[in-house]
Amino acid sequence: MSIQSINVRNQFRGKIKEIIEGSVVSEVDVDTPHGIVTSVITTRSIRELGLKPGVEVLALVKATEVSIAKI
Amino acid sequence: MSIQSINVRNQFRGKIKEIIEGSVVSEVDVDTPHGIVTSVITTRSIRELGLKPGVEVLALVKATEVSIAKI
Amino acid sequence: MSIQSINVRNQFRGKIKEIIEGSVVSEVDVDTPHGIVTSVITTRSIRELGLKPGVEVLALVKATEVSIAKI
Amino acid sequence: MSIQSINVRNQFRGKIKEIIEGSVVSEVDVDTPHGIVTSVITTRSIRELGLKPGVEVLALVKATEVSIAKI
Amino acid sequence: MSIQSINVRNQFRGKIKEIIEGSVVSEVDVDTPHGIVTSVITTRSIRELGLKPGVEVLALVKATEVSIAKI
Amino acid sequence: MSIQSINVRNQFRGKIKEIIEGSVVSEVDVDTPHGIVTSVITTRSIRELGLKPGVEVLALVKATEVSIAKI
Repeated sequence: MSIQSINVRNQFRGKIKEIIEGSVVSEVDVDTPHGIVTSVITTRSIRELGLKPGVEVLALVKATEVSIAKI
Repeated sequence: MSIQSINVRNQFRGKIKEIIEGSVVSEVDVDTPHGIVTSVITTRSIRELGLKPGVEVLALVKATEVSIAKI
Repeated sequence: MSIQSINVRNQFRGKIKEIIEGSVVSEVDVDTPHGIVTSVITTRSIRELGLKPGVEVLALVKATEVSIAKI
Repeated sequence: MSIQSINVRNQFRGKIKEIIEGSVVSEVDVDTPHGIVTSVITTRSIRELGLKPGVEVLALVKATEVSIAKI
Repeated sequence: MSIQSINVRNQFRGKIKEIIEGSVVSEVDVDTPHGIVTSVITTRSIRELGLKPGVEVLALVKATEVSIAKI
Repeated sequence: MSIQSINVRNQFRGKIKEIIEGSVVSEVDVDTPHGIVTSVITTRSIRELGLKPGVEVLALVKATEVSIAKI
């Protein structure tokens, strides 16, 4: 089922640069204009979505998950 | 206490563009070189950190909070 | 931009039953075949997605956010 | 210590169908009336709670962790 | 329904010190031996659980939600 | 880049007691004056931050991630 739009405000478009595959979860590094965005998702999802280096994806982050630090 | 470094892999540097203040939580929109990053934090933190438009901040996201969508 | 598929393993399809709107975040109650699923998202997203009672949606939950309790 | 009730609004009751055990975290698939609900928790918790296929559990999700997509 | 035990590894027992109630979410400050632990939950849950200052509670945090900073 | 302060309200100071290293994520157990706080972060972060038993750290938790249970 295709999704039209999602409430997730923070969307970073890019290409997968690298996947570090573990038995349960895997790290997905996405090359975006913001720099590398790193995600940890289940290894099952990696397989079901057919993710591999070069695939174009959106990295999505809910606003309630974003912290703010003063520098 | 100053923090030397943090495990959070996804760090987006920018200036606060706008704050929508609520009684308990507030929305903070951070203007980064590659677009707005939106955060929802407690209104108490807004006050304690002295956040307001123009202040330079880091928006931080833990890798386990990032979802991946195929487009 | 339409999303083809997403890594989020837990997807609950239903119709919005009620929205409790706050100044910054809002509660969205989704009526699914097996009970209400409740979400808190930014009020901006409510407006941008045109969410209101009766609209068909997917409630999505990342596997790393699910806790397990023994009963 | 027994918990009387919890603020977590989204509670899915079911039986564990499968556990994929990793060295640090494990995937727990719970068979609920909503379909399979997938959780990733520490492998230590799996052992301490005595989780295994067939055990009855609650899968719990905080409302702030639920995203909404339009379909 | 009473919960026997939960996978959430981080449990902080204490008494509610203060509740700042908003229309959708509320802040709950719990006085624990670790100091004040702050939680943001739905205002509906505050009412359904009968939370108010003085009530004894557990503040619960999933291990995947904890970040580590070097100082 | 040093961080001056962070919005994360819940900060637990302690020394790392144990690290269980996995291929993608690792468990970090922090010994604080009031008990162990457990975190799951990427194994890459463990290496980049030079985390090991005995190192002094802050365990940080965003208020929106804290659940409340009645006991």
